[in-house]
Amino acid sequence: MTKNIFESLWRETPPADRSYRSIFKWGAPGEYKHPNKKLFQEIKEQFHLTDDDFRTIRTTGDESVSFKKKTALKAKHIEAFEKISGKENVSVNEYDRLKYSTGKTVEEAINLRNGKPGPLSDLVIHPKNIGEISAIIKLCNKEKIPVYVYGGGSSVNFGFRPSLGGITIVMNTHMNRILELNELNQTVTVEAGIMGPDLEKTLNNAQEIYKSEINYTCGHFPQSFEFSSAGGWIAALGSGQASSYYGDAYDLVLNQTYITPAGEITTLAYPATATGPKVNDIFKGSEGSFGVLVELTLKIFRYMPENRKHFGFIFPSFEAAINAGREITQGEFGMPAVFRISDEEETHIGLKLYGIDGTILDKLMQFRGFKPMQRCLFLGTAEGEKSFAKNIKKHVKLICKKHGGMYITGLPSKMWEPGRYKDPYLREDLQDYGILIDTLETGVRWDNLHKVHQEVRKFIKARPETICMTHGSHFYPQGTNLYFIFIMKDNGVKEYTDFQSGVIDSIEKSGGSLSHHHGVGKMIAPWMERHLGTPQMDILRAIKKHLDPNNIMNPGGQMGLDLKGRDWRKIK
Amino acid sequence: MTKNIFESLWRETPPADRSYRSIFKWGAPGEYKHPNKKLFQEIKEQFHLTDDDFRTIRTTGDESVSFKKKTALKAKHIEAFEKISGKENVSVNEYDRLKYSTGKTVEEAINLRNGKPGPLSDLVIHPKNIGEISAIIKLCNKEKIPVYVYGGGSSVNFGFRPSLGGITIVMNTHMNRILELNELNQTVTVEAGIMGPDLEKTLNNAQEIYKSEINYTCGHFPQSFEFSSAGGWIAALGSGQASSYYGDAYDLVLNQTYITPAGEITTLAYPATATGPKVNDIFKGSEGSFGVLVELTLKIFRYMPENRKHFGFIFPSFEAAINAGREITQGEFGMPAVFRISDEEETHIGLKLYGIDGTILDKLMQFRGFKPMQRCLFLGTAEGEKSFAKNIKKHVKLICKKHGGMYITGLPSKMWEPGRYKDPYLREDLQDYGILIDTLETGVRWDNLHKVHQEVRKFIKARPETICMTHGSHFYPQGTNLYFIFIMKDNGVKEYTDFQSGVIDSIEKSGGSLSHHHGVGKMIAPWMERHLGTPQMDILRAIKKHLDPNNIMNPGGQMGLDLKGRDWRKIK
Repeated sequence: MTKNIFESLWRETPPADRSYRSIFKWGAPGEYKHPNKKLFQEIKEQFHLTDDDFRTIRTTGDESVSFKKKTALKAKHIEAFEKISGKENVSVNEYDRLKYSTGKTVEEAINLRNGKPGPLSDLVIHPKNIGEISAIIKLCNKEKIPVYVYGGGSSVNFGFRPSLGGITIVMNTHMNRILELNELNQTVTVEAGIMGPDLEKTLNNAQEIYKSEINYTCGHFPQSFEFSSAGGWIAALGSGQASSYYGDAYDLVLNQTYITPAGEITTLAYPATATGPKVNDIFKGSEGSFGVLVELTLKIFRYMPENRKHFGFIFPSFEAAINAGREITQGEFGMPAVFRISDEEETHIGLKLYGIDGTILDKLMQFRGFKPMQRCLFLGTAEGEKSFAKNIKKHVKLICKKHGGMYITGLPSKMWEPGRYKDPYLREDLQDYGILIDTLETGVRWDNLHKVHQEVRKFIKARPETICMTHGSHFYPQGTNLYFIFIMKDNGVKEYTDFQSGVIDSIEKSGGSLSHHHGVGKMIAPWMERHLGTPQMDILRAIKKHLDPNNIMNPGGQMGLDLKGRDWRKIK
Repeated sequence: MTKNIFESLWRETPPADRSYRSIFKWGAPGEYKHPNKKLFQEIKEQFHLTDDDFRTIRTTGDESVSFKKKTALKAKHIEAFEKISGKENVSVNEYDRLKYSTGKTVEEAINLRNGKPGPLSDLVIHPKNIGEISAIIKLCNKEKIPVYVYGGGSSVNFGFRPSLGGITIVMNTHMNRILELNELNQTVTVEAGIMGPDLEKTLNNAQEIYKSEINYTCGHFPQSFEFSSAGGWIAALGSGQASSYYGDAYDLVLNQTYITPAGEITTLAYPATATGPKVNDIFKGSEGSFGVLVELTLKIFRYMPENRKHFGFIFPSFEAAINAGREITQGEFGMPAVFRISDEEETHIGLKLYGIDGTILDKLMQFRGFKPMQRCLFLGTAEGEKSFAKNIKKHVKLICKKHGGMYITGLPSKMWEPGRYKDPYLREDLQDYGILIDTLETGVRWDNLHKVHQEVRKFIKARPETICMTHGSHFYPQGTNLYFIFIMKDNGVKEYTDFQSGVIDSIEKSGGSLSHHHGVGKMIAPWMERHLGTPQMDILRAIKKHLDPNNIMNPGGQMGLDLKGRDWRKIK
C-alpha cells in the first residue's frame, strides 16, 4: 500500500541518535500516533490553515546535542559518586545530563527544538541498591549538593528540573525490581524505579512467573503508563484511567521506604492503624522534596479482564451528562472503572478522533436530536467480579436514560481503549508544523464543577484560534476532575507560557484544585502559597526543614517550598 | 412481673447526683445491659465463684465528689476565660473538673469507685463558637496554659487526661451544630462537638428537616456511637461497625478546620488533589496535639436500610473463617458492611450472649460437627443498592460454603444488631462484683494475623482465670483488625495495669499495630517510639513543634510526643 499525500505529512523516522528530539519526543522512538484526516481538517479550519502550511516541518530537533557545559561538581565529588555506584553508572556527559534533566512539558519541547537546554544537572547517577542511595544522600547532604530524582521522566510540570544543578539520581535503570509478590496480603513490593508495563506484565502473568494461584493487575493506568515509574505515581499523586474503581495512586500504597537526609524511613505496613497522623500518607505527594522513595508495597487486584463491560452514551448537554455522572457515583452499587465525560467541544473533536464522526452512529445521534457542539459523550467500563460489573452497567444505563442519555453501545469505549496511552504522541506531529497541544487539570466538587469549567474555558477560548477540550475522568461521590486540553498555534515560548500561567490562574481563581493528578512540580509552584495558604505551606515547610535541613532534595522552587515570590524559571 | 433472684443481682438505680459513679458509668444514667444467665453461669464457672460472691456489691462509687482541690489558675486568667465565653460557660468546681478530666478506661473506673481522682483540669470551658476557641488558644499560648479537648468523653486510653492541669475545652455543649447539608456534594458540614446520634438522626430525616431529595446516613457507627463526637472520630481515627463498606473515620473527611497555636487552618475541600502531601490527612489522628478540631465536612451516604441483608455462618475453625473472610475482601464484588469473625472463645461466649446457646440452632450446629471451643461465628450485613447488596450476600455464601462454613441464617446478625452499642454497659454490672471487662485492639495484615492472635491470646490466657474473646470486625483486602476482650477478677489497679501493659507489649512484639481504632492517648504512648521508630516520631514532633511551639496542646505524654522515657502516669 502506498501512502497518500496526507499520510506523508507525518514523520515516521525515529529521532536521530543523541539528538534533542530523542530527548523531548514522547514515548518510544519508533512509535507514532498521527492526527487522522478529520482532526487534521478540523485544525486547518479552526486555525485558518491550508495544506500549504503543512509542506515543511519547521523545527525537528534532530540536531545533535553538542553544546558544551562543564559539570560544576568538583573532581573529588565525581570520584566519590563513581566509588559509590561504579564508573559505568555515573556520567557528566552533556547529552546524559540534558536527557535526565528534561521532562515532557511543551515548554521544554519548544526550547529543545530550538536547541535551548534548560538547567542541567551536573552529574547523572544510576544507583543499584538502597545502600548506594543512602551513601549518595549522605554525601550530598554533607557537601550540600542538590539532588533530583528521575523516575520515568514523564513529568509535565518540571517535577525533577534541576534548577540548582547538583546531581540527578536515575531510578529506572537498576532500581526496577519486583521484590515480593504477597498473595495472602494481595500486595507487591517493588523498587520505586519499576516502570508501569513491567509491573503490570509480571502481575498479569503471576501464575506462570510466581506459580501464584491467580493473576493480578496493579489497577493503575495513567496516560503516561508506558513511561512512568511506580515511584513517580506516588511521588506526584497520579491517577490511572480506571481510578474511579481502583483508586488513585494515593490509595494504592500499603507502605514505603524513603532515604532522607535525616535517615532511612520505612512506614508502617498495616491496612489501617490509629497510631497518630499516618506518616505513610505524609510522604505521598512529596515530589522528591523530603527524600528519595526507594521501595514501596502496592495493593494489587485480581486480574479479570474477561469481566470488563464497556458502555457509551450520548447526552443532550454537558450538564445532563454530569448529572448522570453524579448520580452514578452516589448510587451505592460500586463505581465504574473507566469513567469519562467529555464536554461539548471535546465530544465534537473526540467523535472525529475515535472515527465515529460521519458514521451511521453519528447520523443516528443527529437524527435523535443530539447536535454537534451541544451533545456530550460519556464512555466507560465496569470491572471486578462478573455480576458486580454487570450490575454496575445495568444501573449506569438506567441512570443515563433518566438524564436523557442515549446508549451508543460499548463500541466507542472499545475504540478509545487501544489508543489510551497513545494520544500524547500526537504532540510531536502537530508541533512539527507549529501547532501546540497541551493540558492542565484540576480537581472539583460537584458544586463548583460548572463554575470552574465555564471560567477556565472562557479564559482559554478568549485566546483567538484555540481549541479547548475538557473531560472529567476520575470520579468520586463528592466530585471529579476537569482535564483541559488546548490546541493552538505556536507563537513562541513567551506567549505560550504567559497563556499557560493564565490558565493556571483561572483554575485557581475559579475554585478548582491546582492539580488533580499531574502534581505541582515547579510549574504550578507559584500558585501554591495562595492556594493552600501560608499556614498550610508552613506545615509542609516544617516537615521539609526537619527531613532535609540543608534543602538538598529537589530545591529551587519545587512545590513552592523554597520559592518565596521568586520566579522559579530564573532560580540558579 | 416480679424479678427473680438472678435479676435482682444487677443494679437498676441511676448513679447518685454528682457522684463518682455518675462520672465513670458508661452511657446513659438510667440505661443498663445486664449479663444474661448463661454469661453469669459461665463467669461463675470460669472464676470459681458461687452465688455467694454476688450477694454484696463491693464498691458503688455512689459517694459524692466532695474532695477539695483548688484550681491552680490565677484569678486573672479565670476572669479572662469568663470574659471570652461567659461566666455560665466556665467552671472551676471540683465535680465539673473531674467529670471532664475523666474518660472511660477501666483504670479510671476502679480508681473512682475508690474515690481516687486522677489529674484534674484547673478549669472547664464550654465555648460557643470558633471565635471563642481562637481567643482561648491565643490566651493559653501566651500564658503557657495546657489545653485538653473533651469531645464526647468516650476515650479508653486517657486521650484527654489533663496530665498537666490547665484547661479543658468541652466541645459537645455548644459546638454541636449542623452547618450545612450539601446534597450535590453529598456532604454534611458540622461543628466538631456534634454527637453521633444527633448527626445520624438528622441525616436519616433530611427530607423532612432540609427538604432534601433523599435521606442520608453518616455510615460511621463505632460501639461508642451514642457517646462520641464527630470530632473525636477523626481526632482518634475511629472505625464504625460498618466500616468495611463505608470506610474508617479517616476516609470520611472531606476537609477540616483547626485552631492551632500557629493560627486557624482550613484544609482544602476536594475529593482528590495532587498538590503535595495532603494537609487534610496530616491532621487526622492528631488527638488534640496539633490544635482543636472545630469544624469538619463529612462524606455521607444514601440511607437505604430497606436494602440491608443479614447473614451468619458457623465455621469449623478460626482459620477456615479467616480464609473465607480474606477471599471475600479480595473478591471484587464490593464489601460487606458489618463483617465480624469471632474466634473460638468469643464464639463460645457470644452464642450465650446472643441467646443461641442451647437452642435448636445450637443443636443443629453440634449435630453437624461444629464443636464448642472450635467453631467460629461469622456475622455480617451487606448494604448499598439492592442488587449490589444481594450480590454480595450471594458471593459471601458461596465463599463460606467453599471454606466449610454452614449458613445459620441472618438471625444471629439480627440478634446482635440492637445491642450493638450496649455491650459496654455490662462493665458496671460486673465491676460491681469485682469482675473487670476490658479491651485492646490492633491492626494486622493477613500474613501476620494468626501470629498476633496466638501470641497475644497466649499472654492473656497465661493469667489464671481470664476469659479472652477475640474478633476481627474491620476488614480490608490487605487484612483486618483483632479486637481482644478480656474478663477477669479485679485484683487491684496495679495488677490490672501491669497485665494491660503486658497485653500491649505482646501486641507490639507479635507485630500488630499499636491500635486499629481506639487511638493512642497516653496509655499506649510509651510503646510509640519503638513501634514507629524515632525517625517517624521525630516527623510528628516536627509538625507538633511547628504548630504548637509551647507544647500547650494535650501535653504530658499524649502519643508519646513529649514522653522521652518518662512514666506518663507520673507526669505532673
